[in-house]
Amino acid sequence: MDPFMQAAIEEARKGYEAGGVPIGSVLVHRGEIIGRGHNQRQQRGSAILHGEMDALENAGRLPAHVYREAVLYTTLSPCPMCSGAIVLYGIPEVVIGENTTFKGDEALLRERGVTLTIHDDSQCKSLMAQFIAERPEVWYEDIGESGAS
Amino acid sequence: MDPFMQAAIEEARKGYEAGGVPIGSVLVHRGEIIGRGHNQRQQRGSAILHGEMDALENAGRLPAHVYREAVLYTTLSPCPMCSGAIVLYGIPEVVIGENTTFKGDEALLRERGVTLTIHDDSQCKSLMAQFIAERPEVWYEDIGESGAS
Repeated sequence: MDPFMQAAIEEARKGYEAGGVPIGSVLVHRGEIIGRGHNQRQQRGSAILHGEMDALENAGRLPAHVYREAVLYTTLSPCPMCSGAIVLYGIPEVVIGENTTFKGDEALLRERGVTLTIHDDSQCKSLMAQFIAERPEVWYEDIGESGAS
Repeated sequence: MDPFMQAAIEEARKGYEAGGVPIGSVLVHRGEIIGRGHNQRQQRGSAILHGEMDALENAGRLPAHVYREAVLYTTLSPCPMCSGAIVLYGIPEVVIGENTTFKGDEALLRERGVTLTIHDDSQCKSLMAQFIAERPEVWYEDIGESGAS
């Protein structure tokens, strides 16, 4: 397995172990991880710290050229907010663990010229399946939906 | 002047007075401000806390139906990241102070059914003009660009 996707999955697991939505992400620049993060809705009461956003935040302030040479790894297909952040910073490449649980704004990313590699990773899927079975209301809140009900 | 846009401008001013990018935002639900914020790049070293994101974060975790009845006020046209957050949460209406200094992803917002009201507010524009004259490199970093040079 790609070590960067493995690192994103480790972040997702950390999130799960802390009671949070198990989505993790790492930002990679020239073969090195420069930011890691995971969804912080539950842990920090955050409406904006999705896994990808947390990784971007933890990478800190960066000049434009760094983002433009970076690859973002995420365990789940990026939602419209995270896709927008990728577009804002001109990150040219995104590697996605799975898009079965949730399909984000892949159409927007492709339209804006972002290269997507989509895996069908069983670890990513089973972490999400487990969490959604346990805490469906948190998951639906995280994607701005009211859930089945 | 609309009191909600006035509140967003007050946030932008607070940002400017603290040395930050002067963009402010408020989230309004049923005629009440439920979240306020301003760009925190400079003050908190944040890559993701644009004014709109800070207002959404300060509003805290909310159920889907609240966002769907909300109006987001922002002093400057929302960038792709903030536009994506608006789309994620299904916020149906955005009021923009000005879009001369920077035109965000208004096309995406319209395409996704968001109603936009765009003012041409001189206070919003002059705060930005002043900041960009003083700290152009911070502004360009904030929008993922390398600037003139």
